[in-house]
Amino acid sequence: MEKLTVVKVGGKIVEEDDTLQQLLVDFLKIEGAKILVHGGGRLATKIAEQLGIESRIVDGRRITDKDTLRIVTMVYAGLVNKNIVAGLQAFGGNAIGLTGADMNIMRSDKRPVTIIDYGLAGDVKEVNTNALMLLFQNGYIPVLSPLTHDKKGNLLNTNADTIAAETAKALAKLFDVTLIYCFEKGGVLIDEKDDNSIIPLINRDIYEQYKNSGVIHSGMIPKLDNAFEALDAGVKQVIITKASAIADGKGTIVLNG
Amino acid sequence: MEKLTVVKVGGKIVEEDDTLQQLLVDFLKIEGAKILVHGGGRLATKIAEQLGIESRIVDGRRITDKDTLRIVTMVYAGLVNKNIVAGLQAFGGNAIGLTGADMNIMRSDKRPVTIIDYGLAGDVKEVNTNALMLLFQNGYIPVLSPLTHDKKGNLLNTNADTIAAETAKALAKLFDVTLIYCFEKGGVLIDEKDDNSIIPLINRDIYEQYKNSGVIHSGMIPKLDNAFEALDAGVKQVIITKASAIADGKGTIVLNG
Repeated sequence: MEKLTVVKVGGKIVEEDDTLQQLLVDFLKIEGAKILVHGGGRLATKIAEQLGIESRIVDGRRITDKDTLRIVTMVYAGLVNKNIVAGLQAFGGNAIGLTGADMNIMRSDKRPVTIIDYGLAGDVKEVNTNALMLLFQNGYIPVLSPLTHDKKGNLLNTNADTIAAETAKALAKLFDVTLIYCFEKGGVLIDEKDDNSIIPLINRDIYEQYKNSGVIHSGMIPKLDNAFEALDAGVKQVIITKASAIADGKGTIVLNG
Repeated sequence: MEKLTVVKVGGKIVEEDDTLQQLLVDFLKIEGAKILVHGGGRLATKIAEQLGIESRIVDGRRITDKDTLRIVTMVYAGLVNKNIVAGLQAFGGNAIGLTGADMNIMRSDKRPVTIIDYGLAGDVKEVNTNALMLLFQNGYIPVLSPLTHDKKGNLLNTNADTIAAETAKALAKLFDVTLIYCFEKGGVLIDEKDDNSIIPLINRDIYEQYKNSGVIHSGMIPKLDNAFEALDAGVKQVIITKASAIADGKGTIVLNG
């Protein structure tokens, strides 16, 4: 099977011009079909503040009311996405920016209200792999912003990590998929204070050991749980690394078995 | 040759939910390949105001400084474009929203500074008809926002009328193209105060007569000059009408000869 790489980068890197340019150069070095998934939460919070709209974030997820949806649509699908696309085009990458509504790439349902009401947040129900295949076959590089739609006319806010994982999982039937999560550190660290203490490889056994000994804890646990879930769904490998290392495959490689 | 319709709608119609929904229903009634080009200037001005950024418009064209470009990128490519795309998807139209940077659809050069410095405004240099053909052949409906790029990494602000005309002209080699300009009136009027006094057909002779007699004047002159320029470049007909009439071909039809 052909190789496909899905790279997820957080807000900070894509929101500043210097780090964005370097990311785009590094991203284009990745061989084969590729997808870039971006965030933009910091900028959304900043613009919301300038417009006098309060940002409410619970457990790392934004509560999306109607005003907030307008802002994230402007920031994610407009400002951040189009700057990335124009930047990739300048470096010779034939990028196309998409939300889940464009080409009906990603359909979601509004998240049911439980203890927390996330508002206009979407849980992914369907990824349109045919549309993505058409783009790959014609040399295009999809750049996905973290917005989906319900096919009833509503855009919905969906976490960028989820967009990346769902895209990788859906395409795992058609490609050898590597999913790369960018992160401020070079990988999963044994010692949080030592940036060189990167764990090169994690499988389930190693993960359990590190969890039991307390080396892996708090925010890293859901990240790795998601990684194993993607592997269970057929993704070949998940790499947790820093943005500057996406082209050379360094970082923590998460594998099944 | 197959039929293609390019519809340009101004800001007002796409910025309000009621009029937008009706427009999308009417637009989808148009048979054959179609493209929707939208504005969004009123909303951009409003958001700029809320962010404390002054909008400067000279002869109907926005002076685009760096802050203004950020706002129009958010409003045109984000808010307006994605609401249209999600709306069309809900009605069964497989829409894809694009700026000129996406798929390198439309490349422009920054407008040279003459008496007026329009700032980050782009004059269209190249329309990527291959990319548009790929979309048509696969049943997609392009929704174009009025932004282009210079392929050096910069987005540029380009008038929506120009986007529509340049797209229509470039595709005239491949399709029988009808270009529809939506407008608050039902067409070009003999008597501005009588909405029923629509001139059904204008060719160059009729245009000259009406210009000489003062029936056609001021803002309608550049509109019709653009229409004849599009016809000279191979566009089959230009229709000037109101949004509610785009599906039934009523309004003022502008023809060569």
